[in-house]
Amino acid sequence: MKAHVLSQLGRRTEVPPISWLMATALARPQLISLAAGFTDNASLPVNEVRGLLKGILGSARIGQAALQYGTTAGDETLRRLTARHLYALDGRPAAPRAYSPDRMVITNGSQQMLYMITEALCDPGDIVLVEDPSYFVFLGILQSHGVRARGIRMQQDGLDLTRLGAVLEALKRSGELRRVKMLYLISYYQNPTGRTTSFEKKAGALKLLRRYERAAGHPLYLVEDGAYRELRFQGEDVKSALAIKGYSDRVIYAGTYSKPFATGTRVGFGLMPELVLTTVLRIKGNHDFGSSNLLQQLLAHALSSGLYDKHLVALRRRYARKARVMRAALKQHFPTEVECWEPDGGLYFWARLPQRLPSDSASKVFQKALAKNVLYVPGNLCYANDPTRRKPNHEMRISYGGATEANLRKGIARLGAVLHDCLRK
Amino acid sequence: MKAHVLSQLGRRTEVPPISWLMATALARPQLISLAAGFTDNASLPVNEVRGLLKGILGSARIGQAALQYGTTAGDETLRRLTARHLYALDGRPAAPRAYSPDRMVITNGSQQMLYMITEALCDPGDIVLVEDPSYFVFLGILQSHGVRARGIRMQQDGLDLTRLGAVLEALKRSGELRRVKMLYLISYYQNPTGRTTSFEKKAGALKLLRRYERAAGHPLYLVEDGAYRELRFQGEDVKSALAIKGYSDRVIYAGTYSKPFATGTRVGFGLMPELVLTTVLRIKGNHDFGSSNLLQQLLAHALSSGLYDKHLVALRRRYARKARVMRAALKQHFPTEVECWEPDGGLYFWARLPQRLPSDSASKVFQKALAKNVLYVPGNLCYANDPTRRKPNHEMRISYGGATEANLRKGIARLGAVLHDCLRK
Repeated sequence: MKAHVLSQLGRRTEVPPISWLMATALARPQLISLAAGFTDNASLPVNEVRGLLKGILGSARIGQAALQYGTTAGDETLRRLTARHLYALDGRPAAPRAYSPDRMVITNGSQQMLYMITEALCDPGDIVLVEDPSYFVFLGILQSHGVRARGIRMQQDGLDLTRLGAVLEALKRSGELRRVKMLYLISYYQNPTGRTTSFEKKAGALKLLRRYERAAGHPLYLVEDGAYRELRFQGEDVKSALAIKGYSDRVIYAGTYSKPFATGTRVGFGLMPELVLTTVLRIKGNHDFGSSNLLQQLLAHALSSGLYDKHLVALRRRYARKARVMRAALKQHFPTEVECWEPDGGLYFWARLPQRLPSDSASKVFQKALAKNVLYVPGNLCYANDPTRRKPNHEMRISYGGATEANLRKGIARLGAVLHDCLRK
Repeated sequence: MKAHVLSQLGRRTEVPPISWLMATALARPQLISLAAGFTDNASLPVNEVRGLLKGILGSARIGQAALQYGTTAGDETLRRLTARHLYALDGRPAAPRAYSPDRMVITNGSQQMLYMITEALCDPGDIVLVEDPSYFVFLGILQSHGVRARGIRMQQDGLDLTRLGAVLEALKRSGELRRVKMLYLISYYQNPTGRTTSFEKKAGALKLLRRYERAAGHPLYLVEDGAYRELRFQGEDVKSALAIKGYSDRVIYAGTYSKPFATGTRVGFGLMPELVLTTVLRIKGNHDFGSSNLLQQLLAHALSSGLYDKHLVALRRRYARKARVMRAALKQHFPTEVECWEPDGGLYFWARLPQRLPSDSASKVFQKALAKNVLYVPGNLCYANDPTRRKPNHEMRISYGGATEANLRKGIARLGAVLHDCLRK
């Protein structure tokens, strides 16, 4: 048998690095995982969810509706409440049309939203611009679809716009601009660096993209992934790209309730222009013709009852404390040669070792850490396969999401000892 | 702007016919829909689900686990219980390996399973063999992926194997056999015809497929969709293709808890050979890296507590009664020239009008029915775009799932009047 039974997509799709890390964690119960992007177990709103579900399922009429199929776009009330919530977060800008529930689809986590956008817009050989580094599961989606990623260097306040301009110009010159479909930004407390993109940078990126649309021959979208947005514990909220006047037909916004509320429900959403929405809804019709109605009712009731907002206050306090614990531990245990980027929200610190010290899974640092039962995400996994630059290999994503405070201290102490040890040699 | 911003998939994906039917139903609140594949509202286990969730969320430990991320393959307990349940349904055959939970993935309805299988196996231009007629949402998935469907005529007990052999032989002669990836069967109370495939026919189909594998150059899979299996209210259960000795590495089985238990939870599953599973799990990692853990816990507890089995008894009784109501109404109101296929389970009757009477959405029958506020699924929507045969256009799928008994009677009376009227002219 010589012919392939698997499709090209099937053959291209690689094992996600996350699977291997998760399997490693499961196989070593003693392990302290600073790798997983899990939320804090003790913070999960068990009582709130129980109460809400009891209410929903306490009425035969509401309960039956929740246990029946819904629509492909998702529950109207949840879309309305989510749109209103986003509009308020953005400070109620003058153009409310961008926040219309009619532009929204409810998805299985924001992950499904990212997947469907890629399906809707990208053919094999197309190009997506991403932050350098970026979210590794999204990079996996691109790779699976045969889409090429171009990494754009980051600065303290997000994307390096000069670099974005240079990459667009180079693509225009090489005649490849028509293969570019979108720029993907994790704009709040970025996964993996913890950095937040300023409002000015979002506007600057949109302006740049528009300048190249004529040469591209089609719209160039900004996909803004706001997954961590509501996990802010210090600093000011930044408005989303939806609030940028005159550009709402170029912005695709992905959000989720997995991070700020009940992770295991996996309810996400997307807001997007009509052409994209029409296509995404058709694709969603084929994926599953609508997300679980019960979970959507749960989220709608969490929002309308005020429990969601209340929970968020407690959650932010909790993550603020865990981030403080990690910061203190890093200060105490990490060598001064290691540069640690501190977030204002989200779940991640980003540590940059001296360039001579590799951090990938085959490296001494990683292996010694594993031997001491502590796990981090090697930074190289977060870089796209972009042949135009070398993949950095001296960074680590360290999460304070899943581990307890005691384990954060212990884990960082172990990691620090490994780093001191490796730097001495 | 001349270049396309949408992908080929994005441009290919059509509005699902189901959306239009649903929108029509929503726009006319007076309408009696015999079209929707909804389950019976009053049958939904509202109290059972409330009790189970109260238990799960009553313990901080179990509750937190349920509200945290799970694994991509799905909850181990749910996979174990589901595998055991299937094994028992199949009469505990001698080869239990086919039912191993390690061969299983939990999905968002069985729909996601069908989607991922298509992604894993099919490139544009590939061929999938389907029943004629078949499940229209699956036909939409194929069309979206540029996959060609070949329809195989059905008989009383499933696929016409002679026809299957002839199609395989013709494809071999035309050199297209290597584009064939799978045969898709809705083997229990088929959507749309209500027909059940006999065990002998499943075995015969597998044998035939194997005979052509050498010429294909790769495995030819049988995808068995058992979505309606447990909604049996008369006749004997038929063993699944998993029970056929020596063929488990060629069978992909898709199942769901949406139909037999709590529809709005959308928990489905698939069992498949290792090569396919590995690929599907990687794809699932990109789709959503795992279905809602809370819903999986719910189903696991429903199974382990016995509530699932208990609910099924009541559910079957209910559908048996609704099917009887519909049968009596059809007998009373439909012209004798209309042939009605009566199911032993599931949700659908299939009515075949005289060939001269078209039933598509532009037809007199459909339009008159709509004017009388009654909706059915035109049979032509259930036929693949197979250029090798003419699409039949004189059938209707009539569901007793969603409507109340009173509305079943009223709806069939109205439809019958329309048919009498159209036949007179």
